[in-house]
Amino acid sequence: MEKTLEKTLKELKEAQGRLAGAPGDAKNVALQGVMNAIDGARKEIIGANEADVAKARQKGMKDALIDRLFLNDQRISSIIAGIHAIIQQEDPIGRVKSAKTLPNGLFIEEITVPLGVAAVIYESRPNVTADVFSLAYKAGCAILLRGSSSALDSNRALVRAIKQGLKAGGGLPEAVALADSGNRAEIDEILRARGWIDVVLPRGGPDLIRRVVEEARIPVIETGAGNCHIYVDASAKDAEAMDIIENAKIQKPGACNAVETLLVHRDRISSLMPRLAERFAGRVELRCDLRSKQGIGAIPETLVVQDARESDWETEFLDYILAVKTVDSLEEGIEHINRYGTKHSEAILTEDNASAEAFCRQVDAACVYINGSTRFTDGGEFGLGAELGISTQKFHARGPMGVGALTSIKYRITGHGQIRG
Amino acid sequence: MEKTLEKTLKELKEAQGRLAGAPGDAKNVALQGVMNAIDGARKEIIGANEADVAKARQKGMKDALIDRLFLNDQRISSIIAGIHAIIQQEDPIGRVKSAKTLPNGLFIEEITVPLGVAAVIYESRPNVTADVFSLAYKAGCAILLRGSSSALDSNRALVRAIKQGLKAGGGLPEAVALADSGNRAEIDEILRARGWIDVVLPRGGPDLIRRVVEEARIPVIETGAGNCHIYVDASAKDAEAMDIIENAKIQKPGACNAVETLLVHRDRISSLMPRLAERFAGRVELRCDLRSKQGIGAIPETLVVQDARESDWETEFLDYILAVKTVDSLEEGIEHINRYGTKHSEAILTEDNASAEAFCRQVDAACVYINGSTRFTDGGEFGLGAELGISTQKFHARGPMGVGALTSIKYRITGHGQIRG
Repeated sequence: MEKTLEKTLKELKEAQGRLAGAPGDAKNVALQGVMNAIDGARKEIIGANEADVAKARQKGMKDALIDRLFLNDQRISSIIAGIHAIIQQEDPIGRVKSAKTLPNGLFIEEITVPLGVAAVIYESRPNVTADVFSLAYKAGCAILLRGSSSALDSNRALVRAIKQGLKAGGGLPEAVALADSGNRAEIDEILRARGWIDVVLPRGGPDLIRRVVEEARIPVIETGAGNCHIYVDASAKDAEAMDIIENAKIQKPGACNAVETLLVHRDRISSLMPRLAERFAGRVELRCDLRSKQGIGAIPETLVVQDARESDWETEFLDYILAVKTVDSLEEGIEHINRYGTKHSEAILTEDNASAEAFCRQVDAACVYINGSTRFTDGGEFGLGAELGISTQKFHARGPMGVGALTSIKYRITGHGQIRG
Repeated sequence: MEKTLEKTLKELKEAQGRLAGAPGDAKNVALQGVMNAIDGARKEIIGANEADVAKARQKGMKDALIDRLFLNDQRISSIIAGIHAIIQQEDPIGRVKSAKTLPNGLFIEEITVPLGVAAVIYESRPNVTADVFSLAYKAGCAILLRGSSSALDSNRALVRAIKQGLKAGGGLPEAVALADSGNRAEIDEILRARGWIDVVLPRGGPDLIRRVVEEARIPVIETGAGNCHIYVDASAKDAEAMDIIENAKIQKPGACNAVETLLVHRDRISSLMPRLAERFAGRVELRCDLRSKQGIGAIPETLVVQDARESDWETEFLDYILAVKTVDSLEEGIEHINRYGTKHSEAILTEDNASAEAFCRQVDAACVYINGSTRFTDGGEFGLGAELGISTQKFHARGPMGVGALTSIKYRITGHGQIRG
């Protein structure tokens, strides 16, 4: 292992050991210090970010990605508000999750403890730096941040402010570190740091996530991919359905919780498709199966309609494109979702309780919605303050992850001399 | 992938999908069927086990290992009792872990769901076959069992009975499978079955666990290694301490929760060591540091005492051997444990509440004991009915694992047309 990284990991582990025993109040005071420090360092952070953005433009980065990288006063205020929301939350550590007395008199308590040292490998967005740090600190975890090289100056400025704030607030500046060597071998070293890092979270595109899953010798929480569906049941209300579909598709098409395929019960095709065509004309391209295309009737001039191919069912477009498929039954809809979905967010629009129940029970996804937009799958929307990411796996954590995902438990057993017979 | 394994995994996944929606009663009736079937197949199972034992003896297997492999009427009764205990437990699936209404009116419930398909790779003991199957079935999970070749006939007879019992009880016989090809490549295929297997649990020696951790591309729960300590505080009661130390060392020295190193506060050396020497003379070899050796005074004729070496602090003896170290303070004891321990089970013997509190907070282990024997770290003792193993990691599950370790959650969000603004 690179000397620098080894030293960093030792410091993180040592700091985490001390942070594990810190009372909730002390952690909150330290986080308050971080809020103040970021507030006081706005000029430096924005200056550093301007340098990153200028470099990115020179390299020809796309506008959408530049927007992700970009920080301004308002965005920094929102970072600070996120930390404030995390401070407001109960201390997740030291909570008694269960307690019982065994017949032999031993008293067993299951107590929450920090997971340990976490590492996050992420692309572009510098707000992740502050969000993930705050959640980790609240959970008593130390954090190693490996951001993208395009955000290096911004992340350095943010981590500098975070460390200053921790120091000012009587906290542990050693509990956070930026892995900023810039070389890609550093990622491999992080992924093999068994005994030093308790969990790694990749946040980024499919290539990054695949690499992490394949190379890691430490536990990984996969986040991200969302090939989300809305199933319009025979009993759905047309007007409500239209608003939800529009919101799930175009309020933020690049988000992982945006809808990609619409499944329409055959009984709703004739009433829904003309409305959909009208609503999306000039805004969203449709990729329709035969029946749903026929259901449109006269195709509006500004509407782009393509014939759907097998690959469309598999694709997370992250764009103004919606695949549409007719299904003969609720069961066919559920089957399609369980076959092509990524276990992220799936919605049913229905007025029928039995359909809603069956959908919720049988669809295998982190979040199943009844009559709501898939766009709500988000740590902020769920009231977690910020999020570490959205887990699309079932192991350890699922769905939007807040501080809870960075905790584990410890059994504390109190006796008076019990021995095993 | 080998055709046979691929077919098996498809069947398991398909069965798990159906089992996920099974009501608790139906799962219990099926498990009752399994109890009856194992009860009815005692003769066949014992016959198959006799063949395994005979083969093992021919190959020169040690008595201790033969004992692990061995089944008789009483052990089969205890397997059946384990299933009964699991039936008695509440259904772990479909429980609402949390529920809240967001300001926008969305109602979010966090509901327990099965983890999916689990695989267990284990050595020798055929009771694991029935224990792990029952826990998995109760949790709505399908299970792939990869036992050792030395127990192949026993495991085949058990799995045959389990499948018959599931059929008779109206359950899903396809939810359990024995990977019995006997070739080691099969294990590699299991460890790389991404998308098919949701978790793999290795149960066995350090070589097996290391191999699984290094080769797996699917989530692993590590179990097993227990370099456990008892720290005797300045305030401990001598008589109680002696009974606990004896129990933790010799009630079952080969168990992972047996004590391996005794840490004694310097103030207790002179009173404790002579008693310990007397108690363990002719029974347990001591590996002492200088001060604890001197504390014995006149060494009893039948007592074996060696000078402790650094390697003794690191070793899980699993034998009638106890390392003993003198510490100057509680803090030194905690430091030693956090350095050499395997985060399994650690005990403090003390009459001082502040010491107990500090020990429990600062020792990083799955189970921390105050005035009790470490031997209680066990699914059965903890009231879990049976256990999947004892997790020595902090990720997903920690300590003795029952049905809960095979569950995940799903968020169910109920709205009335909410869209994101």
